[in-house]
Amino acid sequence: MPLCTLSRRALQLKSSAIREILKITEQPDVISFAGGLPNPATFPVAQIRDAADRVLVEQGANALQYSPTEGYAPLRAWIAERHSLPGAPVSPEQVLLTTGSQQALDLLGKVLIDPGSRVLVETPTYLGAIQAFGLYEPHFVSVPSDDDGLVPESLDDGLCHGARFLYTLPSFQNPTGRLMPLDRRQALVERAARLGLPLVEDNPYGDLCYDGAPLPTLRELNPHGVVYLGSFSKILAPGLRLGYVIAETALIGKLVQAKQAADLHTPSFTQIVAHQVVKDGYLSQHIPQVCQLYATQCQAMLQALEAHMPAGVHWNRPRGGMFLWLALPEGMRSLDVLQRALAEKVAFVPGEPFYTGAPDPRTLRLSFVTVPPARIEEGVARLGRLLGA
Amino acid sequence: MPLCTLSRRALQLKSSAIREILKITEQPDVISFAGGLPNPATFPVAQIRDAADRVLVEQGANALQYSPTEGYAPLRAWIAERHSLPGAPVSPEQVLLTTGSQQALDLLGKVLIDPGSRVLVETPTYLGAIQAFGLYEPHFVSVPSDDDGLVPESLDDGLCHGARFLYTLPSFQNPTGRLMPLDRRQALVERAARLGLPLVEDNPYGDLCYDGAPLPTLRELNPHGVVYLGSFSKILAPGLRLGYVIAETALIGKLVQAKQAADLHTPSFTQIVAHQVVKDGYLSQHIPQVCQLYATQCQAMLQALEAHMPAGVHWNRPRGGMFLWLALPEGMRSLDVLQRALAEKVAFVPGEPFYTGAPDPRTLRLSFVTVPPARIEEGVARLGRLLGA
Repeated sequence: MPLCTLSRRALQLKSSAIREILKITEQPDVISFAGGLPNPATFPVAQIRDAADRVLVEQGANALQYSPTEGYAPLRAWIAERHSLPGAPVSPEQVLLTTGSQQALDLLGKVLIDPGSRVLVETPTYLGAIQAFGLYEPHFVSVPSDDDGLVPESLDDGLCHGARFLYTLPSFQNPTGRLMPLDRRQALVERAARLGLPLVEDNPYGDLCYDGAPLPTLRELNPHGVVYLGSFSKILAPGLRLGYVIAETALIGKLVQAKQAADLHTPSFTQIVAHQVVKDGYLSQHIPQVCQLYATQCQAMLQALEAHMPAGVHWNRPRGGMFLWLALPEGMRSLDVLQRALAEKVAFVPGEPFYTGAPDPRTLRLSFVTVPPARIEEGVARLGRLLGA
Repeated sequence: MPLCTLSRRALQLKSSAIREILKITEQPDVISFAGGLPNPATFPVAQIRDAADRVLVEQGANALQYSPTEGYAPLRAWIAERHSLPGAPVSPEQVLLTTGSQQALDLLGKVLIDPGSRVLVETPTYLGAIQAFGLYEPHFVSVPSDDDGLVPESLDDGLCHGARFLYTLPSFQNPTGRLMPLDRRQALVERAARLGLPLVEDNPYGDLCYDGAPLPTLRELNPHGVVYLGSFSKILAPGLRLGYVIAETALIGKLVQAKQAADLHTPSFTQIVAHQVVKDGYLSQHIPQVCQLYATQCQAMLQALEAHMPAGVHWNRPRGGMFLWLALPEGMRSLDVLQRALAEKVAFVPGEPFYTGAPDPRTLRLSFVTVPPARIEEGVARLGRLLGA
């Protein structure tokens, strides 16, 4: 007899078949385009080492003690300043530090979702958000989307009635890498405001923009209509688990109460170390270096795809981020192809788990940031042969 | 108009009046017995500094990258070994690292509590557990308890019917500092097993035992009947936010799925650093030093209480931990006394928020670990005068 009776939400948790398959990809001889990991060459190890040492020497007791749920005050202030615009300042009280931005998704689910609440998402959308929100048993509504992201015109009274929020990643989305153009951003925030639909903008990849100028965020276009999620995972290091929410102070207050129950606070040590690293402008030289590396990696993947993919395979040309989205020829399923690819020691993530509605079974996600260019060429060539090129 | 519609559970979140009052206690001229903080003099700053440096030099990319939800494998193995008994080994697969043991409470609530589920707790019990479980809307049942902890004989079929679990802190409980004696521990695990009642044993203070030999944990008395929560907050440093769950692998599997949605994983960096610090036996010299300091602090508080408290005030004599529980004379309310105490620049936590049932309004919690002995004397003397000594 099992010791414990599980809650209804726990019974709904399913072990992901894909997760099991992907364990194979951890074998060193597999060329894996499956991971969602940043390239560790971008981690500022020396800067973090210096900062950790300085923090422990100068304020060791502070860095190792309990600290406020809201986050380390100087880091909150730094984030607020970074996101302030002329005429639209962000106050530190609008910022909550979270244990990775994944925690922000969980906290938002906790304070905004009742069982059966309508939650609007893009098609496809970030798997981690489906998992985090899913535990609060919403009714997901998959909003029509295309290569430019979700289609604002599809939002109407019927779709949005009673919806708690629309969750969107307008910049270099995980899984697709797609970028929502400026006119669509404007149309989206205007339509959402008219419909009374709160927007949750998740923007972990926005700084990884290596083709063209960065676009304004939805928050910048309408600060009062958007709950914004940021992250240090892609621009500093994910192993620190540092993310943040920017929102109206009333919502921040509720999120703080939920966070206090969830983990009291994000580690003091990692917050103070991160603040030491970023406070004097380090990111303005670091982010361009990350972008340069990822642009090269992206180019290698695009060239390999052009060289090796048969007719009928389609993919996008990301202008930033870490991922590319590919569609197999009509009638093929990426889940089937994955089985054969793994036999050839190549891996990717099939698209299906990223859909809350009917999936497009031909789709798959390729990460291009961790595999060296020569291995990208080899891996894509193997995939091409599988697909009959 | 507020931007977002809140969930039912968020609407139930109340801003704590006591939390507001306690903000006053952060003023430097207040003698505060209110905090739940360890004494920062016990933090092994030099050891953590060395470890952080070594980790970043030797495995910087590893420490800064995403890592498994279950936790850093060598740390899981170290915890498993530390909790293994002859004939009753703990496997690393039974261990889940959490972002502080507060997160373990949240994850357990998530996977074990449905709205209306009966959850049994001691009288009084840890406020953070009430907050964490409370978000999942259980029906709390307050189990009769006395100076030796909860009374096992009060557990019967009626009380336990359909209960998801009993949450208990048998060693130096927060808030009371009380210790459940061995015979009661045995009676509790036997009765719980007979009733099919899972026990959740929260043990952050068990190592802080400075008067007599440590007692076996409930888990040690019945490994299969207990979900065990451990923490590095009181024996290393709370600012690292490192706790863990030990349970059957089936439950660990569900908790891992919930944790993946909650924050992906606990920071890699802090886990690897903590492992570096503890792996070669450091705690066996460190914990006795913490105990020695806290024993001295406890003694100072007990002497001050004996010297300054009027007749009719009662308190316990903790044999470990960080807290002492005091009851005012019949007819007095600790909440009222707190207002007057704050005017005299002394602070404590009133007992009321620690009760899920009818509170004993005369009770209050005193922390004795952070205030220097001379200030303890002065603070208790002020309280004594207030109470008419």
